[in-house]
Amino acid sequence: MAGSPSKPRALFDDDRTGIIYRTAARIIYEKGFDATSMSEIAEALDLTKPGLYYYVKGKKELLYSIMGFAMDLLDSDVVEPSRQIADPEERLRVIIRLHARLLTHEAGALGILIDEDGGLSDEQREDIVNRKRDYFEFLRRTLEELRESGRLRQVDSTVAAFSLLGMVMWIARWYDSKGRLASETVVQDVTEIALAGMLMPTSAQPSMSLAQAL
Amino acid sequence: MAGSPSKPRALFDDDRTGIIYRTAARIIYEKGFDATSMSEIAEALDLTKPGLYYYVKGKKELLYSIMGFAMDLLDSDVVEPSRQIADPEERLRVIIRLHARLLTHEAGALGILIDEDGGLSDEQREDIVNRKRDYFEFLRRTLEELRESGRLRQVDSTVAAFSLLGMVMWIARWYDSKGRLASETVVQDVTEIALAGMLMPTSAQPSMSLAQAL
Repeated sequence: MAGSPSKPRALFDDDRTGIIYRTAARIIYEKGFDATSMSEIAEALDLTKPGLYYYVKGKKELLYSIMGFAMDLLDSDVVEPSRQIADPEERLRVIIRLHARLLTHEAGALGILIDEDGGLSDEQREDIVNRKRDYFEFLRRTLEELRESGRLRQVDSTVAAFSLLGMVMWIARWYDSKGRLASETVVQDVTEIALAGMLMPTSAQPSMSLAQAL
Repeated sequence: MAGSPSKPRALFDDDRTGIIYRTAARIIYEKGFDATSMSEIAEALDLTKPGLYYYVKGKKELLYSIMGFAMDLLDSDVVEPSRQIADPEERLRVIIRLHARLLTHEAGALGILIDEDGGLSDEQREDIVNRKRDYFEFLRRTLEELRESGRLRQVDSTVAAFSLLGMVMWIARWYDSKGRLASETVVQDVTEIALAGMLMPTSAQPSMSLAQAL
């Protein structure tokens, strides 16, 4: 599982940049960005310092690459598989399930670092903020579509989208893949809680309840 | 409002330590703990460096005091007013409402720093972790009481408690008291979303639905 072993097993396979970013994310998360040196990251990867510089230009560039990598994963594993789903309720269910699954499988550090952009340049930060905003708007528009079809609770869609994000992003902070809870239990329960929090209860449609009861 | 002015207005009233902790939290959050100096904090408070050391022993002590202050606020403003409520559903509603309200009124930095304990000593970290665990268990036990009375969804209470926490704690990261949304809108919507996510839908109790329909 990502984030558990300190030494990568397959640095020279196709996923070498992924391994570098995940390992670096874990060290930066544990020690703080300022206190982490490129030497430590190289050592954890069994690379020489010049070896590490072959893959990354410098520490600031590395942090930006880690965040870009995390956003790429979000795009490929969550946004791409869900964006074509026409029904907003089904789309929302798939978004939450896939995002929760990504966070239970990936190193927690990757999910947490994405919000700690203090080490980026202004230009780098702007790029990451824009990519996050795109995802937020994807969520919010899905909620607005739910509202149009009468299925969203009477809540502000911005508050609702941030509540969803908080619930899901928090997984990176508390879930331990070596603990008691299977990742699919977490994915299933978070999806149920999040959807129930968003959707109008069916009992709020009295004519349907009546029809069902009779 | 907390977190808005850079200069405190009333450093010598009874709330002087609160002002010191809130101001320091904002600077540490913006610059990172390692990059923040005691001189900068003193300057932002219009204090001399010795003046600041009259209130706090040192930088590490300050971070610990800030976290203790945040946990004290949680105790006084959320736990104390809700712990005596006998009905678990009403207790949960009050906990969420008061915690969300605390986070919309307090400086966001205070709510975020509480999870960034990298600068603490082992002993200090253990104390803060224990206090957070107490709050988490207070939440989880309330959910288990709901389960005993048949009102909790079929979800794991640990997953549910962390989902609640994530939703509420996220407010510190996104809510801007100078933005479009009134704090009470956020409090009300987050409370509705969170409770709906936890509680068994009434339509899952068919005999009651039938009774209501007829």
